[in-house]
Amino acid sequence: MRLIAIVLAVVLPGMALADPLPSWNDTDAKAKIIAFVDSVTDPAADTYVTPADRVAVFDNDGTLWAEKPMYVQAFFALDRLKAMAEKDPSVLSSDVLKAAAEGDMKTVAASGEKGLLEIIDTTHTGLPVETFIEDARTWLATAKNPAKDKRFEDMVYQPMLELLSYLRDQGFSTYIVSGGGIDFIRAFSEKAYNIPVNQVIGSSVKSKFEMVDGVPTVIKEPGVFFVDDKAGKPVGISGRIGKRPIFAAGNSDGDFEMLQWTTAGEGPRFGLIVHHTDAEREFAYDRDSNVGKLVRGLDEGPGLGWLIVDMAKDWAAVWPDE
Amino acid sequence: MRLIAIVLAVVLPGMALADPLPSWNDTDAKAKIIAFVDSVTDPAADTYVTPADRVAVFDNDGTLWAEKPMYVQAFFALDRLKAMAEKDPSVLSSDVLKAAAEGDMKTVAASGEKGLLEIIDTTHTGLPVETFIEDARTWLATAKNPAKDKRFEDMVYQPMLELLSYLRDQGFSTYIVSGGGIDFIRAFSEKAYNIPVNQVIGSSVKSKFEMVDGVPTVIKEPGVFFVDDKAGKPVGISGRIGKRPIFAAGNSDGDFEMLQWTTAGEGPRFGLIVHHTDAEREFAYDRDSNVGKLVRGLDEGPGLGWLIVDMAKDWAAVWPDE
Ligand SMILES: [Ca+2]
Ligand SMILES: [Ca+2]
Repeated sequence: MRLIAIVLAVVLPGMALADPLPSWNDTDAKAKIIAFVDSVTDPAADTYVTPADRVAVFDNDGTLWAEKPMYVQAFFALDRLKAMAEKDPSVLSSDVLKAAAEGDMKTVAASGEKGLLEIIDTTHTGLPVETFIEDARTWLATAKNPAKDKRFEDMVYQPMLELLSYLRDQGFSTYIVSGGGIDFIRAFSEKAYNIPVNQVIGSSVKSKFEMVDGVPTVIKEPGVFFVDDKAGKPVGISGRIGKRPIFAAGNSDGDFEMLQWTTAGEGPRFGLIVHHTDAEREFAYDRDSNVGKLVRGLDEGPGLGWLIVDMAKDWAAVWPDE
Repeated sequence: MRLIAIVLAVVLPGMALADPLPSWNDTDAKAKIIAFVDSVTDPAADTYVTPADRVAVFDNDGTLWAEKPMYVQAFFALDRLKAMAEKDPSVLSSDVLKAAAEGDMKTVAASGEKGLLEIIDTTHTGLPVETFIEDARTWLATAKNPAKDKRFEDMVYQPMLELLSYLRDQGFSTYIVSGGGIDFIRAFSEKAYNIPVNQVIGSSVKSKFEMVDGVPTVIKEPGVFFVDDKAGKPVGISGRIGKRPIFAAGNSDGDFEMLQWTTAGEGPRFGLIVHHTDAEREFAYDRDSNVGKLVRGLDEGPGLGWLIVDMAKDWAAVWPDE
């Protein structure tokens, strides 16, 4: 394989001249990211990290794609519930489910975690994992964000796509670590982010193996198996990846522990928070938001050396079709 | 990257002439494995499988390394318990723990699952995941199988190491899917099998994220989180890998559902069972064994098209140092 190494040595230096992050403005944020990547990939530096340990983790909602006015998966659950109720109205067996099908989000919100789980159990369980993923894929093919009249899948952040590619080009493995449902994310991770399904970590309901009409099948079951949020994120990463990342990106206090754990390790570490400051091109929100609430990250992040990305200032473009 | 493709095209055909499985005798078993791999890697064949879908899963105990007279992890737990009791005798707070520390396996066995969990909780929890893995690594460096006076790490099966390498060379991802503890396996998977820690799936206790003296830490906690055995294996694979394997290898009825699910998928599939028939070089056991009990696999496997590997007949060598 020595021949390949020579080919790479000849080809790669030329490629490195191109700007790896063209949709990032030439601000401190971009310079800091590139300086970090250079520091861990330079074999001569004492900050060098072997490719096997170049693990980068990314939150999804609000970090890789938009989460306003409501999580994409919440839109999916409500559409799915409505479709189910059209076929069989008896599906709406409780006040919360009736309210959800009518789009009465106030009542749904007031029902708290219990109501949310009822909606998840009704719309996300009782079918094979593979069927659920296909259903989500079908829905995503046309579903739009009502606030922007854009397909959800087109509301991924171009600068973050470039960051993912850049890290991978530099020998990193890139993982999604989301509070959202793992099977929902698996419906689009490959297409949207070039992240294979085995590099998706998320929350999940229980599942079981069963013979269905003689066919071995894995079925999604009611009840929570794992909540991949807040302190659950380091736990999920430890269980799934088996090592501590050296790079973590998030946008809310649900990512605090993940960044805290990542950046407390020895050697070079990078914590990145996407701060939604761009009401014009995307949305502006932080401390008082219903989704993506960001308080500790803003207050403590800079002191911990984390990069707070100012979307309005640091991003030259937001969307891929811009 | 076209240049690399050309280099590979020039170099690889020459390499393919070498025997990929030198420690396998020239029996049907070897021919069937090679025919399967050829069928899924030939781009011109209608059985071709894209590299991203070439997922191969391997049970560990009895499939990749020896499991007699007792699981390696059981030896580890007992040694650890004894070491803990030497430092602090109050650790042995129950009859089962006392019996275990004295090597009275009859009493331990009679205590059933409850007793086993007590031993696991005592020896495998209450410490950081990273520390546990280091401890297991230290123990494995010298620990020996009393029945063969060989280091456990030297009792991996040379033919299976070759099979793992062969599959990887042919674009497969290789995963361990074990009923054993995930963190224990992570202590040796890379060194013993060239399988990175993120490709280890196993049973696990709970874990939690906590600040310990100001240091963000993931700690192993008492209580079962997931049992990766029997019907749990397809569930574990679905949750972790997110797709159905096309190749599965096991040695006991704990692998039945994994092979059943794997081989029921569309397109070419391979199920392999290591049948321990070699009392001279390794151990001979199946239907009546305390570990690695194999009944359904022998009775139903051949009818399902699975390959039953006859260790005595199909393997030219068993151990790497032979
Ligand atoms: Ca988020
Ligand atoms: Ca086994």
